[in-house]
Amino acid sequence: MAATAKTSPPNGAAHIAELDASKLIVNLAETLKPIPEDAHFGEHKTDHMLVVSYEPTTGWSAPEIKPYGPFTLDPSSSCFQYCPNVFEGMKAYVGPNGEPRLFRSNKNMERLTRSAERVALPPFDEKELLVLIKRLVMIDKRWIPTKEGHSLYIRPTIIGTRTALGVAASDSALLYVFMTPTGPYFDSSAGGIPLQAVSKTVRSWPGGTGGHKLGLNYAPGFLPQRVAAKDGYVQILWLLPHEGEERITEAGAMNFFVVVKRDDGDLDVVTPPLDGTILPGITRLSCIELLQAHTEGRTVLPGIPATQRLYTHERPITMRELAAWTEEGKVVEAFGVGTAVAVLPIGRIGHEERDLVLPSQEGLGVVGKALLRRVLDIQTGRFEWEGWSEVCEV
Amino acid sequence: MAATAKTSPPNGAAHIAELDASKLIVNLAETLKPIPEDAHFGEHKTDHMLVVSYEPTTGWSAPEIKPYGPFTLDPSSSCFQYCPNVFEGMKAYVGPNGEPRLFRSNKNMERLTRSAERVALPPFDEKELLVLIKRLVMIDKRWIPTKEGHSLYIRPTIIGTRTALGVAASDSALLYVFMTPTGPYFDSSAGGIPLQAVSKTVRSWPGGTGGHKLGLNYAPGFLPQRVAAKDGYVQILWLLPHEGEERITEAGAMNFFVVVKRDDGDLDVVTPPLDGTILPGITRLSCIELLQAHTEGRTVLPGIPATQRLYTHERPITMRELAAWTEEGKVVEAFGVGTAVAVLPIGRIGHEERDLVLPSQEGLGVVGKALLRRVLDIQTGRFEWEGWSEVCEV
Repeated sequence: MAATAKTSPPNGAAHIAELDASKLIVNLAETLKPIPEDAHFGEHKTDHMLVVSYEPTTGWSAPEIKPYGPFTLDPSSSCFQYCPNVFEGMKAYVGPNGEPRLFRSNKNMERLTRSAERVALPPFDEKELLVLIKRLVMIDKRWIPTKEGHSLYIRPTIIGTRTALGVAASDSALLYVFMTPTGPYFDSSAGGIPLQAVSKTVRSWPGGTGGHKLGLNYAPGFLPQRVAAKDGYVQILWLLPHEGEERITEAGAMNFFVVVKRDDGDLDVVTPPLDGTILPGITRLSCIELLQAHTEGRTVLPGIPATQRLYTHERPITMRELAAWTEEGKVVEAFGVGTAVAVLPIGRIGHEERDLVLPSQEGLGVVGKALLRRVLDIQTGRFEWEGWSEVCEV
Repeated sequence: MAATAKTSPPNGAAHIAELDASKLIVNLAETLKPIPEDAHFGEHKTDHMLVVSYEPTTGWSAPEIKPYGPFTLDPSSSCFQYCPNVFEGMKAYVGPNGEPRLFRSNKNMERLTRSAERVALPPFDEKELLVLIKRLVMIDKRWIPTKEGHSLYIRPTIIGTRTALGVAASDSALLYVFMTPTGPYFDSSAGGIPLQAVSKTVRSWPGGTGGHKLGLNYAPGFLPQRVAAKDGYVQILWLLPHEGEERITEAGAMNFFVVVKRDDGDLDVVTPPLDGTILPGITRLSCIELLQAHTEGRTVLPGIPATQRLYTHERPITMRELAAWTEEGKVVEAFGVGTAVAVLPIGRIGHEERDLVLPSQEGLGVVGKALLRRVLDIQTGRFEWEGWSEVCEV
């Protein structure tokens, strides 16, 4: 189990081991859990998890896949005190031949790297981690739901484990990955979900951390989220005050899209830009790329005429603009996209004691439906597109 | 050990127990640790810690004081994933008769309550927690250093322990308190410390969480802190861009003060206002109150003539103003104040590739020295002032 260093620091310094999938130790559970029929997001964990630790003197430990279970940590650990904790959200799907598949997982690894850098956690080899995640998925593949719209959610996490109290980077860390079977994040069978637009509390700010997937971006939303729920809204739409206007940023668990009709029948699909206050969602990127491919004639999205032009725009959207477009009858639909929600219609937006009612109150419109269908088809391997879906192999 | 409810929720709901110091269970360590001669801040923990847990169905558990040791937590716990983690920094001092003393600890309890509210953690009874903390201090009182400028740092912490992955408030929590003997936070014997002013990364913003003592306010500073250290600065001075100017906010571990001379010899002592972007420091408040008491003739600060007027101002300070005051020779000194640092001279501020050199490069000036002396004298019970220092009993 002794870690063999891949790199040799100069002049007799201790060998700092890289993350190395070939050192994997697998300890399988003696008894496997029954798989629940239906469950809330994150409620049940699969039989196993992946765990690797980092120490400044030795580097990454030998990775271990072992039965899912609790950690033992010192009360002064940085993860509790100063929160250098990052995570990713990925999903495994079952393909046409029963094979487990991941979706653009290299994008998750790149984002995890950037997140870890942002809070000064130790670096890791993305390719090695992906090999380990695939191995974990294969070991617990019986947990991947086959029901339409269901999947196995994968949660890679890195937490700081330094035990000193001085406010400084955590030079030790724990990297772990666990998985949970999941159905729809929100029950939206009744139509579009209601969001509460909030600008008094601000999720992110220029120079802040909103463009990274850090655990610490989430807790400040708990209280506003509770208020929103009491008022009958299922999630918050975060606004950013900017020069007397309120810019729409994102909804915490999803990026925001609005489809606007031009007089000539062409459609503008608008989403806020990645200015550092918005999470660079992988579903967001995929939707933009699919819409562009449709308009460029490289594919035809399901249910949309090949001749329908769909122009994507990454640019600021203010609440005032959205209200004006809605009043003028130009809004076709608004939806949120993300790994957890896929593509979810937005029915109305509560703002300043009024509700902005959107056409997507009845459910996804033509663009949202096409994106949801196509994204799910790619994720489950029913539609091959630019290598976005990868088969997990041992 | 069964918790007896103090409040009875209506109609057969389970009894939700309040935090109750009278239920304390004490399990003393069988062997006590040797007390280290000298140690870095936070390096050594005392023999015992206080632990209480909260579950939504039963409320607060019976508090327990037990040997300091690790926790066992589920990998999906909210504290790792979404960071609803809050803490306090307090200190215990030894008084003239060897008695352990706390300093304005009710202020820490009030702030902890506000912090917990901000991230939707369960509420707790401040008075009961304070009784428990005093009990812990008494049990480990042999750890309180007697050396001048040394003390026993106390770290109350509450972390969210909900194990579901949906982004929502943690309805279960762990409250714990541990302690560590500490000397000076920075070695400033050589004079004022150098700060690096940073505005590209922003610590806090209007509508953000900078006015609360949340763990999540700290990790985003690790990377800039590392850069600052490489450039030879020991801490960051966080700036907030505002209408083309850069406002000085705070330094992460301390609030910022600058002393400016008027033409008539009176002194202005200026510190940024509590606008929600700045931690409401208890040392900050104490310094303001002591300066006001001096000017109002209610006390005479050590080393300052009774006739010297010291006018306190809580108002924004821009980097441009500070530079102008310095150039005009009006700055008497600048210092940082906080529980960990007490009163610490600021020698220079790196800003836009230049260093703003301050008179306090040589060490604390007359005002900083007076405040440090008086605060330490009150904390150690050598000077009685408005009940700020409380003797721990039981």
